[in-house]
Amino acid sequence: MTTGRLEAFSDGVFAIIITIMVLELKAPHGDTLADLLPLLPVFLSYVLSFIFVGIYWNNHHHMLQAVEHVAGGNLWANLHLLFWLSLVPFVTGWMGENNFAAAPVAIYGVVLLCAALAYKILQSSLIRTGGHDSALARAMGRDWKGRVSPVIYLVSIGLALWQPRVACAGYVSVAILWLIPDRRIERNLPAR
Amino acid sequence: MTTGRLEAFSDGVFAIIITIMVLELKAPHGDTLADLLPLLPVFLSYVLSFIFVGIYWNNHHHMLQAVEHVAGGNLWANLHLLFWLSLVPFVTGWMGENNFAAAPVAIYGVVLLCAALAYKILQSSLIRTGGHDSALARAMGRDWKGRVSPVIYLVSIGLALWQPRVACAGYVSVAILWLIPDRRIERNLPAR
Amino acid sequence: MTTGRLEAFSDGVFAIIITIMVLELKAPHGDTLADLLPLLPVFLSYVLSFIFVGIYWNNHHHMLQAVEHVAGGNLWANLHLLFWLSLVPFVTGWMGENNFAAAPVAIYGVVLLCAALAYKILQSSLIRTGGHDSALARAMGRDWKGRVSPVIYLVSIGLALWQPRVACAGYVSVAILWLIPDRRIERNLPAR
Amino acid sequence: MTTGRLEAFSDGVFAIIITIMVLELKAPHGDTLADLLPLLPVFLSYVLSFIFVGIYWNNHHHMLQAVEHVAGGNLWANLHLLFWLSLVPFVTGWMGENNFAAAPVAIYGVVLLCAALAYKILQSSLIRTGGHDSALARAMGRDWKGRVSPVIYLVSIGLALWQPRVACAGYVSVAILWLIPDRRIERNLPAR
Repeated sequence: MTTGRLEAFSDGVFAIIITIMVLELKAPHGDTLADLLPLLPVFLSYVLSFIFVGIYWNNHHHMLQAVEHVAGGNLWANLHLLFWLSLVPFVTGWMGENNFAAAPVAIYGVVLLCAALAYKILQSSLIRTGGHDSALARAMGRDWKGRVSPVIYLVSIGLALWQPRVACAGYVSVAILWLIPDRRIERNLPAR
Repeated sequence: MTTGRLEAFSDGVFAIIITIMVLELKAPHGDTLADLLPLLPVFLSYVLSFIFVGIYWNNHHHMLQAVEHVAGGNLWANLHLLFWLSLVPFVTGWMGENNFAAAPVAIYGVVLLCAALAYKILQSSLIRTGGHDSALARAMGRDWKGRVSPVIYLVSIGLALWQPRVACAGYVSVAILWLIPDRRIERNLPAR
Repeated sequence: MTTGRLEAFSDGVFAIIITIMVLELKAPHGDTLADLLPLLPVFLSYVLSFIFVGIYWNNHHHMLQAVEHVAGGNLWANLHLLFWLSLVPFVTGWMGENNFAAAPVAIYGVVLLCAALAYKILQSSLIRTGGHDSALARAMGRDWKGRVSPVIYLVSIGLALWQPRVACAGYVSVAILWLIPDRRIERNLPAR
Repeated sequence: MTTGRLEAFSDGVFAIIITIMVLELKAPHGDTLADLLPLLPVFLSYVLSFIFVGIYWNNHHHMLQAVEHVAGGNLWANLHLLFWLSLVPFVTGWMGENNFAAAPVAIYGVVLLCAALAYKILQSSLIRTGGHDSALARAMGRDWKGRVSPVIYLVSIGLALWQPRVACAGYVSVAILWLIPDRRIERNLPAR
């Protein structure tokens, strides 16, 4: 099977996730600038989640570029990743509406952690299908970002219950880590 | 007509159905972990429906791989399937919010049953267009899963009014049955 | 310009319109079958609109099959059609929640009428771009369905204020008219 | 990397943005034509935003036609544009529900201004990737519309706090300016 429809379906889900999050930003009843202020935490959590979903889309896009065929198992590994990402709007809304309180920040981190693990599983599953000599396997190399991120998430989740703001700083640092696109794949791909 | 746009439109609908279901998961007003507990039934019904829509997408994807051309009638058979799947978010929400009560569980099963029958109709309609010697017709073979599922649904719907939890176990068993991707098509398709 | 991205964007909008209409079907608070009864008019108006949007997608799909290139003006004619279709979920919800009362039924017809006119405009605009000898121009022929539908809509809208149920029968009759796919295009297209 | 998946993902986001705005149009409880009247400002702001998102989709489509390859940085410039556009439904709803009051009209303009700047950034980023001799660079030429629009937005935002209706007229004039599709690209593209 080619990757075309896997990408099309994933793009649809990514696009919807990134867009319906904005529905949590409910228009305030008042009509002054001051009425927007209480929305600030919801807005900030929206921005953070937009960046995270953007990073996943970006890396997903890069990863699938290095893949030529997918098997049935890959489709399920992909759906598993989309499942965790589909929970992002829910935890984003909960975290924003409660102004980054302890439990919502911790649960937000749990969803990010599960999405990161699901991404690793998808990556391994694609490498298993393509073979360890495949372009993807070579491009991945040591994958230090993929190893460090879950550790930062775990520490942040633990911290969240005492210092939710510090935990958020942990999530932001993972986002910054990944904002630099994954040059490994671009570098290792033959010119098309 | 080629299958391209049928797949693109279906992918869009699948992606939206699987994603808007999460809108039923409304962020609770409290900010403690205990505030998440009442959402557990809604979450479980979301997981079940995510898996069902995922199975349909997966099988739809496999089935269309084996098809080269579609006619006008196929488009309507496809829309008919999408219609029943579009009701999944509604029955998922109703079942989850009422903690798997009798009537919602029965109606959930009715929608799954109708979707299963609509899938059979689409399959027959594609085989009729492609001819009984087509790759799809050969790949389908005896289709025992497609025959057993409606029976399990029917029994579960009947049971739901007395034992809704047992009915849910019936739905879960159908999901497990289908989670194994449809190797018949992969096996019977010529290498592309 | 090729038609690829016009179709992809339109498919996305069609898919979203057809799916978000179901959000009007709100899960009732009770958990008995009787609690579903008050939803019947909303459900019926959903079914009617699902069929109408399905017809538009189907005909749009057939029409674009007969077209090879689009110009800037076609993109706007297409957006104009999508605008009227985007109002379908709103009028569907209003009509269903008010149990097919006079004014909502009339406005529902106005939106259908505008969508039908927008479709005619798009068709003319594509024929103008492709030339009067194009496959589309030949395939359209006398287009009696496209001429009769606006008349039925107009009569139904007028009737709606006295006899909304009769007006609904008018809309249903247009739907039945179009449910038969547009064989003109399939017949006139060269085999690909 | 080819532009295929960037376009597919963007089309998905554009399609969702343009369609979920209509969810702000909530069906009124009454069933007379007079019950629709209070929705008029929400409807008008919907029409304006529909046209703006349509313009962005249209120009995005034209611009990507002139591009053959994208790099990692372009993907983020594109996501940055989509971020600002994703805020359009929120500001549209706020402006409409408050009947074009001062602050909502000003904030609406701020989002349009940021989207316009993000579009310029995306354009420059694509030209940087493609080279200053690329089809896109030649097609852009002096880009007077892209230079004039931010000025009109800035003036309108300033005016909004005193004369919100005049500011709206400013936004409408930008829309009219852009409604004429970007012939520069069509003219400069080699025939495909």
